[in-house]
This record gives sequence, structure tokens and C-alpha cells, in this order.
Amino acid sequence: MHEGLSERRRSFHRYPEPAWREFYTTSLLVEAIEEVEVDELAVGREAMAPDERMAVPSDEELAPWFERARKRGAREDVLDACEGGYTGCVAVLDRGEGPSIGLRVDIDGLFVEEAPDESHRPAREGFRSEHEGLMHACGHDAHMTVGLAVLEAVAESDFSGTFTVFFQPAEEEGGGGRPMAEGPYAKGIEYLLCVHVGLDHPTGEVVAGMEKPLAMSHMNVAFEGESSHAGQAPEKGANAIQAMASAVSEAYAIPRHSEGMTRVNVGRVEAGTASNVIAEDARITAEVRGETTRLMESMKGRFERICTSAAEMHGCGADVAIHSESPRADSDPELATLVQEVARGVEGVNRPVGTAEFGASEDATFLMQAVQEAGGLATYAIVGTDHPDSHHTPHFDVDERSLGIAVDVLTESIERIRKERP
Amino acid sequence: MHEGLSERRRSFHRYPEPAWREFYTTSLLVEAIEEVEVDELAVGREAMAPDERMAVPSDEELAPWFERARKRGAREDVLDACEGGYTGCVAVLDRGEGPSIGLRVDIDGLFVEEAPDESHRPAREGFRSEHEGLMHACGHDAHMTVGLAVLEAVAESDFSGTFTVFFQPAEEEGGGGRPMAEGPYAKGIEYLLCVHVGLDHPTGEVVAGMEKPLAMSHMNVAFEGESSHAGQAPEKGANAIQAMASAVSEAYAIPRHSEGMTRVNVGRVEAGTASNVIAEDARITAEVRGETTRLMESMKGRFERICTSAAEMHGCGADVAIHSESPRADSDPELATLVQEVARGVEGVNRPVGTAEFGASEDATFLMQAVQEAGGLATYAIVGTDHPDSHHTPHFDVDERSLGIAVDVLTESIERIRKERP
Amino acid sequence: MHEGLSERRRSFHRYPEPAWREFYTTSLLVEAIEEVEVDELAVGREAMAPDERMAVPSDEELAPWFERARKRGAREDVLDACEGGYTGCVAVLDRGEGPSIGLRVDIDGLFVEEAPDESHRPAREGFRSEHEGLMHACGHDAHMTVGLAVLEAVAESDFSGTFTVFFQPAEEEGGGGRPMAEGPYAKGIEYLLCVHVGLDHPTGEVVAGMEKPLAMSHMNVAFEGESSHAGQAPEKGANAIQAMASAVSEAYAIPRHSEGMTRVNVGRVEAGTASNVIAEDARITAEVRGETTRLMESMKGRFERICTSAAEMHGCGADVAIHSESPRADSDPELATLVQEVARGVEGVNRPVGTAEFGASEDATFLMQAVQEAGGLATYAIVGTDHPDSHHTPHFDVDERSLGIAVDVLTESIERIRKERP
Amino acid sequence: MHEGLSERRRSFHRYPEPAWREFYTTSLLVEAIEEVEVDELAVGREAMAPDERMAVPSDEELAPWFERARKRGAREDVLDACEGGYTGCVAVLDRGEGPSIGLRVDIDGLFVEEAPDESHRPAREGFRSEHEGLMHACGHDAHMTVGLAVLEAVAESDFSGTFTVFFQPAEEEGGGGRPMAEGPYAKGIEYLLCVHVGLDHPTGEVVAGMEKPLAMSHMNVAFEGESSHAGQAPEKGANAIQAMASAVSEAYAIPRHSEGMTRVNVGRVEAGTASNVIAEDARITAEVRGETTRLMESMKGRFERICTSAAEMHGCGADVAIHSESPRADSDPELATLVQEVARGVEGVNRPVGTAEFGASEDATFLMQAVQEAGGLATYAIVGTDHPDSHHTPHFDVDERSLGIAVDVLTESIERIRKERP
Repeated sequence: MHEGLSERRRSFHRYPEPAWREFYTTSLLVEAIEEVEVDELAVGREAMAPDERMAVPSDEELAPWFERARKRGAREDVLDACEGGYTGCVAVLDRGEGPSIGLRVDIDGLFVEEAPDESHRPAREGFRSEHEGLMHACGHDAHMTVGLAVLEAVAESDFSGTFTVFFQPAEEEGGGGRPMAEGPYAKGIEYLLCVHVGLDHPTGEVVAGMEKPLAMSHMNVAFEGESSHAGQAPEKGANAIQAMASAVSEAYAIPRHSEGMTRVNVGRVEAGTASNVIAEDARITAEVRGETTRLMESMKGRFERICTSAAEMHGCGADVAIHSESPRADSDPELATLVQEVARGVEGVNRPVGTAEFGASEDATFLMQAVQEAGGLATYAIVGTDHPDSHHTPHFDVDERSLGIAVDVLTESIERIRKERP
Repeated sequence: MHEGLSERRRSFHRYPEPAWREFYTTSLLVEAIEEVEVDELAVGREAMAPDERMAVPSDEELAPWFERARKRGAREDVLDACEGGYTGCVAVLDRGEGPSIGLRVDIDGLFVEEAPDESHRPAREGFRSEHEGLMHACGHDAHMTVGLAVLEAVAESDFSGTFTVFFQPAEEEGGGGRPMAEGPYAKGIEYLLCVHVGLDHPTGEVVAGMEKPLAMSHMNVAFEGESSHAGQAPEKGANAIQAMASAVSEAYAIPRHSEGMTRVNVGRVEAGTASNVIAEDARITAEVRGETTRLMESMKGRFERICTSAAEMHGCGADVAIHSESPRADSDPELATLVQEVARGVEGVNRPVGTAEFGASEDATFLMQAVQEAGGLATYAIVGTDHPDSHHTPHFDVDERSLGIAVDVLTESIERIRKERP
Repeated sequence: MHEGLSERRRSFHRYPEPAWREFYTTSLLVEAIEEVEVDELAVGREAMAPDERMAVPSDEELAPWFERARKRGAREDVLDACEGGYTGCVAVLDRGEGPSIGLRVDIDGLFVEEAPDESHRPAREGFRSEHEGLMHACGHDAHMTVGLAVLEAVAESDFSGTFTVFFQPAEEEGGGGRPMAEGPYAKGIEYLLCVHVGLDHPTGEVVAGMEKPLAMSHMNVAFEGESSHAGQAPEKGANAIQAMASAVSEAYAIPRHSEGMTRVNVGRVEAGTASNVIAEDARITAEVRGETTRLMESMKGRFERICTSAAEMHGCGADVAIHSESPRADSDPELATLVQEVARGVEGVNRPVGTAEFGASEDATFLMQAVQEAGGLATYAIVGTDHPDSHHTPHFDVDERSLGIAVDVLTESIERIRKERP
Repeated sequence: MHEGLSERRRSFHRYPEPAWREFYTTSLLVEAIEEVEVDELAVGREAMAPDERMAVPSDEELAPWFERARKRGAREDVLDACEGGYTGCVAVLDRGEGPSIGLRVDIDGLFVEEAPDESHRPAREGFRSEHEGLMHACGHDAHMTVGLAVLEAVAESDFSGTFTVFFQPAEEEGGGGRPMAEGPYAKGIEYLLCVHVGLDHPTGEVVAGMEKPLAMSHMNVAFEGESSHAGQAPEKGANAIQAMASAVSEAYAIPRHSEGMTRVNVGRVEAGTASNVIAEDARITAEVRGETTRLMESMKGRFERICTSAAEMHGCGADVAIHSESPRADSDPELATLVQEVARGVEGVNRPVGTAEFGASEDATFLMQAVQEAGGLATYAIVGTDHPDSHHTPHFDVDERSLGIAVDVLTESIERIRKERP
């Protein structure tokens, strides 16, 4: 029944593409979706609110991937729809009366060099990444496979209602969630299912609803000063390195918040040129998090004020750019309970769990939040998979038995939602 | 010839008064000046530009000294003229054709507790300060004595021209120089003589012209935030102690200047209340200096910007108040040479020196600058005096033999200026 | 039945004494306890582990209170036992077989000037503080009254077992809890009851068990450098103000902790002398807190390291002294449930609550922790009282109806513990 | 007479090599020197104190230049002597009785891409750099040419005494001066001449003695901490970026020095990896300078202490490595006066200047200092040359007429020194 799943997952695995550059991936998805009788298929720009993209690469970063996809055989109509870095697609089954149910999967790869050794199954069995330096090291190849299979299963069933599958680009740096959530297809979704494999949960375990992802904002700051000779005219410069150092020290000193957990980090600094030059330029990469979106926003406001004031203090300017962001959204217990009950009856599931804490950030929360704010219900489920090494590492791999489990849990949950409308 | 000098100096020594509170001192000066036939005597407010005062004490600080002066027998007309802390006076001899020559002496005491032991001559010979906690510990008692004696000598001579003696209040914290310089009597002065005793130069030495005083600005900064409970709501406060700490650290990091020496110091901090309260209030006392007035101004501008930005960074406000200031002004070599030549011929002088570096700050530079900017010449002379301990300490004392030397050097310099008009 | 309670509370209210200076208070307690037939009464030094005191005042601070107590009529034997600031006492009823139960009340007043106006009952009815500037503004007068009355009630009952009442000094700055917990009378206590009135809970409400006090450490840090003239030799000094500023900024930047809530604050700074002196001395008052004792200890370690390194950075030394400390300890649910059930049946109680969060720090946690670590149970109960203004303010007062409620709840809880031994 | 100078300078110009990689350059020098009858020629390692090298490149940086030199035809014996980056050479004429005179020239090129356009004479006339990205953009090609020509001229003259020419490698980053000064050939030099062309002085001008170079120390600091996840375990890391920021801020706050001018700058920072990682690694490039070597050393000591303490403060380590250094040394007036007088008589010189301030740093000061400390005299002369653009830029070029002037001034100065022995 689930025979083609491995094969399809492996074909995705061979061609990982980074965020907003999933041109060939989208083409593969479109070809697969067209084999199902869907009522609507929006590709690229049309699938999203195009102005809401975040963490968008430069034209120089986009171009080679666009060309590579073309050479690899991507369809020209898909390339046209995605040109400029508007990747991904949304498929809709419109089957009359019934609930509007959504499923969200993500599609991008990572800048990880895949392991070439025999101990790594993709290398051993010949489906290792053909894009050197890129890898599906977080299971998005599995997610796409599952998304397509659920679409097929629902299409072939007697489902009535509306079923929408979001093939979301650019999850890794948090860039694709918002344009999907603000786009035309999020509206009216009453029940949203999100799915992720693994995350240290073994094959056979299913977590029906993740809780407490941290709201996050990832920022790039550029401090701009003026250079001068450090020996001959130190007072003539406006020292961007001093401004940066002051901002960094003070950022960590943003006060703790009585309403809950917060975080702040400056994780990368690059500044100046040589020891005898007052630096005119310093760039930092930073992030703030909060137990709630409100706490994250409070941290962000403080962080921006610190950067601006630190720059002023040294006669510099500071440009704070939001690279990407994700709100907090929790799984709704009613929907999670339904998924947990379904999982209990699925073959291969030996540990159906209700909820678990997330401890990290995910931009699926944009879609979840949009659905919840409109009165709908959402859950973010984990389908366990034995993985030989951690996510985001060269030896990461999924246990393909979990593909069928995921398809069953999701397909049956959709059926159950239609019947019970929790 | 100089017989009354010691006696007069001792009478001043007994009644030291602090800056802008020299009410009784001014009364003593007025009584002495009235014994000379002066053509004009301006007392208190009339002697200065009253709005230009700096480092002015509060009404609470003024009141007890005003009352004490009245009880001690200060003249009511003098008290009226000085009320509100406008002390000091200016005496003018207007003797027809000739140069306009000025002499500046200062009159305030210091918050130093005078030594009571027998090794200290004022204690041993019965003229120790009668104002506990206050002391003429920098020789201003000698300066007033010399100023009066020179006034008498010039009045009794055949001097022709105008001779003005400035009895300047509030030198110690730099508050009285500017209102004298901006006041009605500085205008038209063509030659200005300033005098100080001691400064580590022994009796018999005379330095004709001091050089390179540092321009200085003394500032008080108040950071105002908002308090909150450090355990229950740390994020609700605006932490004035954080703002202060940031400003302090950054103040010292103002870049060195290629045009010359600069200085910065935060010398006093007082902030907050208790460990469990986010501080709403922090106050610092600071100063900047520069080899030139321009360098000092540059440091001041940077310092103010740092305080403002550090406050903003923490959601606080910063109020930067100039407490007092003094510019840089150097002795004119023509006038210094004249004084040096005169000194060579004065009895008791065995070491007439041309110039020496000052290394500190003095607000006589306001008057010097005013005269120089109007095309006149100024010099700041030191008349050496053996002093048993450093200025500003409880055992400081002057060698009274230097009083007559000072009177002679200045009187003869005035005579020489009239004749030679350098 | 509870007729003498108001009178006794008012007699304590008239003579508030600050931490470790409760000489007269202890004398009053001893006199009252001696009217009950107790089996053991330890006064002052004997009641505690004397070397474990924290936040101890200097001899200069102790002396006037010792003299005042003597003049007011304190018993000489009590003064002898308390000399040097070892105040408080412990009373024991030893009634054979049965559980060992403890009750802890605190006895110190606060440096608050009591309101003198008619709207304030103590002023209106003539029992306002007779020690100007001191006040029982946190209800410890009520606590002592309740402690004595419970002692009397248990003594008169057919109680069997051991009952120990701790009259603990020096609670306000967290100084007396540890020496009581480490002293001879904490050993063997199987059930510990602690009590506080008010805390924003109205008369008629009883909270059976407080939870989540923050562990806290209150520290004083002295930075010692070397002074020099800020204009003439800035490089010769070791700037204690720079060291302090660096430590302050960095203290707030101690990283957030993934295991729970932490806090840090520098609430008071005093440093340096004058603007033209590189400061040789800076003193700060600070605190760290943690959701657990372990988190507080982690913060304390980081804070100390920061002070030491900041001092070294500027050629200074740093002396970090623990002023006082309190661990985290929570009420045991078994014991809290028992108290809640008892409260339900006490006349005057209309709202018996199980638990509530504390949100602040209390040094009763030392005794609670000692009992719990030895296998016993402890709870910290609140007996509500209408109070016209907040604790620690001049118009604070207690509703004396709550005194009887407290006595009943505690006495009956002791009876119930004896019977049920939860 | 000076006909071969241009040709030789152009042959050097074509093959610029960077510091410690002047393998082919040294081979060219050796060939030229062997045409003169010198008494001693030390090449590479033997010419210096090999352990005193500074700013030494890694083996990876050395290797390609070594290979390139071999391919270009460098002599194998020279390559052997220079292997491992011990480049440069020293030639000695030992002509019996007479003074020991030294001449120092430098030989390294710069990482500057030479201009290819026709406006640039080396491009137009076919002697542009054949090493892409490298250029003789500071005139060291001219210096070598002059050094060889003076050697020839002295060799052909009736000079008696000892004459040593130092062809010093690695001047640009200050790496070669110390090993030359500490090496075998600096000993016994009684008169040292150093020479530089240009520096904004036009053809026809000669400055006989440069003054006040700043003593300088160029340092690299690596802060090593421990990484952790910024969201999930911020307290587990040791944040190298916080350590770096603290060190940077405090470095600028090193106090001003009363003895003279100082400088400090952090000109380059590179740290961390990504926003969600507590950085384990931060590297900075910094420098300190001082009006005297002592002031520079004082700054260096303070800077190191700050880095170490800032690291400790954040649980990190700091490794402070001296990249290169140069002391202060001034030209001796006796020798400068001699050179100025000589220059007055040299054809082509229209402006013989005595002294000028340097305002930058130079590692010739090592040799000057060594000579002066042993009782000898040294001077650093500038031979003006019209240069179309600044030193260190792609269009820099020298006016070749200045080559002959330099040779004449130096040769005649050597003759005059021999005769007058100032």
C-alpha cells in the first residue's frame, strides 16, 4: 500500500535546494500533484503573499540555483511562476460540503555536506545528495513525500469538504511561514495539521501536539561609522567597532521579565579591516526569543533601542533588519486529542503521546496562528523516526517505515475530523 | 613699610568663607578699600555679570553664612549688595591719561578643617580659623592682603591711567571667573596681572608667567529612570544604575585626540536605594579637560552625547549640568618678560623665572581671555612662598615675607607698564 | 477567650526594635513565656548557632539599642544572654510520647517612621511606636502575640509530644533564619508550622501553604583601587569607579538559565569623592535570586566572578561579602492540606485556600529546609488580615480579629498533627 | 653615471614579494652584490637573529612563493639559505681602519593590485608587477636599487673603515626590523643611515632626520569559550563574543597618560557562527602606540590585562599574541645635520630640510635603537620623489630622478662621516 513512498522520498533526497531556491523541488512537486485530480494548484508567487517573504537571498544567491534547476529539467512554467525566489506550491481538493482542513509540510534543504561513507544509507544505496554542500538533513524530503501521499489518499477517498496541502518553502531560517499564512490559501482553514518527523522521537512514537515553541526574531544589524587612521587621527573616526561592542554587552543585559522566559544572543560579528584603521563598519547577527510572542516583541524593542543608542553614542548609525521571525502558537488540545486517539489505532504506532514541549522555534506557527485567530484549530504533530544522527548533521537519515505511519495517522485524522468536527 | 601686611592677612585668615558665601570677607574688603581714595567701588551683584555665575550653592547652603556674617558684624549695605550669593567687589582708581591696568585676586576659603596643633603657626599664634571646617588653605587670605596693599601703593603714587582691582569670589570650584570676565569692569583693561602665592615655589622665587593651564569643564549628571521591584517586576523599571554604568565605562573610552592632551574622569557616583529596587536615580560628578579650550569643548560634547545615549539605551533621561568651567589662557610673553625684569630688581627675590607649566586649571583664565581677546595682554604670576604642607591641607601656611615681595613686584610692574606700555 | 491578644500585641507594637537589637522585645517574651510552664527556655546565644548569624550590625549600631533596652527595664539576665546582638529565644514543651512539632514566628521591627495621624489606629488609640523611626510595619508584633498564645493553649491542653516555639530575630534582612535552622532546637522537629499575617489576604482568608519563594542572596561588594589626580596623573590611579561600572553592566548580562527564572540587581552604588580624583573606592549593594537554590547559587557564582574580574581589569581588588541569604523551600502538600482542612472549621475563616505563590523571599525557608532535609514536613501559612496600607509603610496596621483566627488555626492544626501524623 | 639605476629598479619592480617571502628578490640581490667585491655576504638565516622574527606567515603562506621563486630561476643556494621564510641579506665591505657605517634598506612588496592602465608608467612602459595582487607600492624597489648603487660606489672609492648594507625583509607589518637589529651584523655599527623615498616630499627635497615615530605594538587576540544553543541552554556556553565586546569597550578606556600621547585601537573583529549559537570563538586585531617605547609598553600591559580579565569574566580564555612591534627611535641631530649639509651640495636637491615629524611607525627603529644604545649615531632620511598617488595605492610610482639623488646624498654622507666622525 505504501510501496512508492521510499522511492519518492529518495528522489527528493537527491536534489536538496536551499530556502527560496527550491525551483527543481517545486517542479517535482507540481508533476506529482498533477497526477492527482486536484481542484486547484497554485505555484510560486500565487501560492503566497509575496511581499511577506523573509530571509530572502540576494539575486546573486538565487541565480545559480535557478539555472541548475533549468538544466536538471525543471518545467518552464514552474520556473516562470517561481522566478525571483517565490518557490513552493499549494494544492486544493474541493469536495463540496464539509470542513476545511489544511496540511502543512516544508520543502527546503540545508547547507550541510552529506556524509559519503558506506555507513550512511543514502550513500550506500545510491541516493546521496547530488548537490554538493546541500542536504535534506532535517527530513523535509520525508515531509513532502507524506504530503503528496496524504493528498492522494484523500483524493481517492469519499472525503467531503475542502482539503488544502501547503508545500511551504524556506522553513529553516524562518522565511516561508509568514507569506503562506498571509497568502490566499490560509483563509477559511478550520483545522490545520502540521507534521514533522523525528526530533529524537523513535519510530513507533507519535506526539499529537507540540507545545511551547519559543517565539523568535532573527535580526541583522549593521553599524555604520567613519574610518580614520588610528594613529594619526583617532578622533576623526566614528568607531563602528566601539558601537558594536557596546550594543553586544548591553543586549545581554536586557532585564529578565517577570512574565516568562526570554532569550537574547549575538551569535556572529564581523567588523573592521585592519589594526590601524578606526572601523567604519560592523555587522552582527542576533536573535531574541520569548515564551510568548509578546515577550519576544518586548525583547526585540529593547534590542533595537540598544543598537540605536549604542550607535548614537559613538556617532554611528545602526540599521536593524529583521531577517526572519516566528510567533508562538500551541497545539489545540481538542485537535491533539483527536490525533492521539487516531494514532492509537494505527499500525506501527506503539507510543501515542499527547503533548511534548518543543524548546525551539518553528515558522509553522504563522499558519497555526492564522488559523487559530480565525477561530480554527491547529496541531503540530511529530511522527517518530529512528535517526542515526542528529538533525542538521551529515549522517542524519530517516527510518522509512515512519513514512507510512505518518500517512496513516494524517489520513485517518482527516477522516475523523470530517466526522467529528471537534 | 610692609608692616601691616601680616596683621591684615591674619585677620582675613581667621574668617574663611566658602564660594559665593564670602559675605563677611567682602565687608572687610569694603571697609579697607574705603580707607583708600578710590574713584569707584562696586560691591557684589554690581561688580559682575550676575547671570554668569557658576557652581552656585543652594539657598539652604547660603543662608547660614549670610546670618553668620551679620552676627559677626558685616555691614548691612554690603550684605544687601551681596544677598543671594553675589559676593566680592571691584575697586577702581581713575587717574586720567594712561593705560588701563587690572589686578585680579581671589577671596574664598575651603572646606578643610584647620590643624589645631602647636606646630601650625596660625594655631600657635592665635589666628586659626574661627569657622570650624573652613580654612584659608590656598593662600587667598594673602592674595586679598596683597591686592589691598597694591591698591594703596598705587593710590599714593603718581600713577596716571586706570587701575582696577578685582576681588574675585568663588575661585575654588571655578564659579567666579566668568561673571567677573563678563561683568562691567573687565572691559577696556589693557594689561592684566593675576597673582598666586606658593604652588611649590619657595620664598624668593617669582615666576613671571604661568603657561598651559588645562581648560576644564566640571559637570554633574543626573540619570532619571523608574523604579520597580527587582524580584517581582524587573522589566517594569528603567534602570538608572545601568544607564550610569554604561555612561561611565564609555566616557573613559572617548578617543584620544591627535591635536593634544585630553582628560576625562567620573570622580563621584551616588545611585539607588536598596538591593531589591531597580534604581530610579543616579548622580555622577565628572570633569573633562583639554590642552586647549577647543579640545575641552570637544571632550564635553562627546561626554554629553554619551550620557544622553546611555540614558536612552535604558529608557532613562540624563540631565547634564555644567557646574563650572575654565578656558585655557596663557601668559603673554611681553608682559611676563616685563614682570620678570621687575622681579629681578626687587629685594628678597633671588630667583626670577620667566615661565613654568601649570598642569592644573584656574578660572583666572576667563579674565585673561577676555583681556586678550580685546587686544590686551595678561600674565599670571606666582610669588613663591615657603609652605610647610601642600595647598588644600590642614597644615598649609604661607611665609609672610612673601607678602611684601608680592606687593613690590606688582606695584613696580604697574609702574613699569605705565612707562613702557609693552 | 482571646481577650488578652490585642493588649499584648499593642504592648509589642509600642517598642519595635531592629534586627539583632530586639533586646527589650526578648525580655518581654521571656517574661511572658515564664508564665507558662515550659520545660525549656533558651534565650539569645543559646537559642541559635551563634556563628551562623548574617546581616549583623556593627557594635556602634548595637550599643544604643542595648542601652535603651536596659533603661526601658529589660531584665539583666536576658540582656546578658543577648549581649553582642544574639537576640530572640526558643521555648519548648516536652510532654512525653508523640510528634515533635515546631512553630516559627519572627520578632523584629523596621526602619519606618510610624504615621502619627488620627486615621492610623495605633496613633489614635495610643499605642504608636515609642521608638521614633522604627515601626512594627510588617505584623511581627502580631506574630509574637500569636506564638505566645499558641504556646499557652498547647501547654494547657492534653498535648503529648514535643512542641517548640521559635521566636526568630532579624527576619527583615534575612539574618536570623540560618542561625535558628543550624541551632540546637531545629533538630528532630518533625512538623514545622510558619505563620505570617496579611500579605494582601483579607481577614477571613487562610492560605495553608505558600509556594515558590525565590532563593535569594544579598551581597555587598567593595572595590578598592588607588586614587590619583585626574588631571595630572590619571594613569597612576587604579580606578574603582571604572571597575564598578564594568561589574554593574556585566552583572545584568549574566546569561538566562534554561532551568528556570533568575534575577540580578545592583540597587545601590556609592563611589569616589570629587570630580578631579581617580576614585579609590566604590561600594555596591546587589542581589541575585533564583527559582531554585541551585539557580541562585549559580547566579551568585557568576556575579562574584564578574566582580573579581572587573576589579582585576582595572588593577583593583573586589571584596564580595554575603550580607544575607535564603534558600527556596516549599510547603509540603500533606501538611498544607491538613492546615487547610483545619481552617475550614475555624470560626471567622470564610476562605480556606490550599496554596499560593509567594513571589518574594523569606528566611523561614532555612528552618523549613532543615526540617524537610531531616525527613520532616513543613508549611508556611498566611492568616489573612485587613490592612489599611501595604506592609512596610507608615500606615500599615493589622485587623486584630485575625489574631484569634491565627491562634485557633495553629492550635487545632497541632492537635490534628498529633492525632493524624500525616 | 647613474644610468643603470632605472633599469635595475624596474627589474625589482616586476617581481614584488610579500614579507618573509622575498625569495626571488633575495636571489636578485645576491647576484648583484656578487658583482661588487664585498668582503662578506650573509644570506637569509645567517643575516639575522632567526628567533626574533615577527609577523611570520604560516607554512601554507610561504610555500607557493618559495615554489614560484624557484620556477622563476632563483638560485638554489639562496633558496636553501632562505628556506622557511628567512629572507634578505647583509653585505659588508671591510676596508681596514675607519668608522663602521651601516645603511639599511627594505625589500618587501605589498598586497596591492597594481594599476593596469596607461596612465600608470609601469604599465605603459612594460614593467608592471608580474605577480598579480602584489606590488612594490611603497618604493622598496627604489630602496634596494639605491642600496646596491651605494654599495658599488663605496666599494669603488678609497673608503677606509667598515661599510655594511642591510637588505631588510618584512618591513610592512613590522616583522623584519628586530631580527636584523638583534642579528650579528648590527653589532659595532657606529653610524647608521636609513632611507625612504617619497612620503609626500617632492623630488628635490631631502629630509635629513625623521623624528617622533610612534612606538607601536600590533596584537592578535583569540578569545576561546564554549558553544551552546542560545535558546535551549544559554547558561551552558562560555560566550566568547561577550568576552570580546567587554575587552573592546574597556581597551579604549585605558586611562590617558600624563607623560605623553598614547593610542589604542581594535581594528578588526571576527567572531561566532550563527545567531542561535553561543559563540565559542572570537578573534580581534588590535594595536597600541605611545609617544615613547615606555608608553607603548604600558599600554600593551594594560591591554593584555583587559583581555585576560574580560575573558575570565565570561569563563573564557584569551590568547594575546604580539604580531609585530617597533620601538621609538629618533634621528640623532649631529648625524642629521651632517646629512643635511651634504644634501645642500648635491645636484638636484633644492630643499634640504633638517627634521620632520613622522607621525607613523617604522621598524627601522629597531636598528636605530640598537646602534644608539651601543653609543652610535643614527638617522632616518627621506629623499623626496614626486609620486602620482599615495603610498600603498595602485597608482603609486616613484620619480626615477630621485634614485641618483639618493645615491649621491648617501655616498657623500658616508664619505663625510669617515672624514668628520661626528
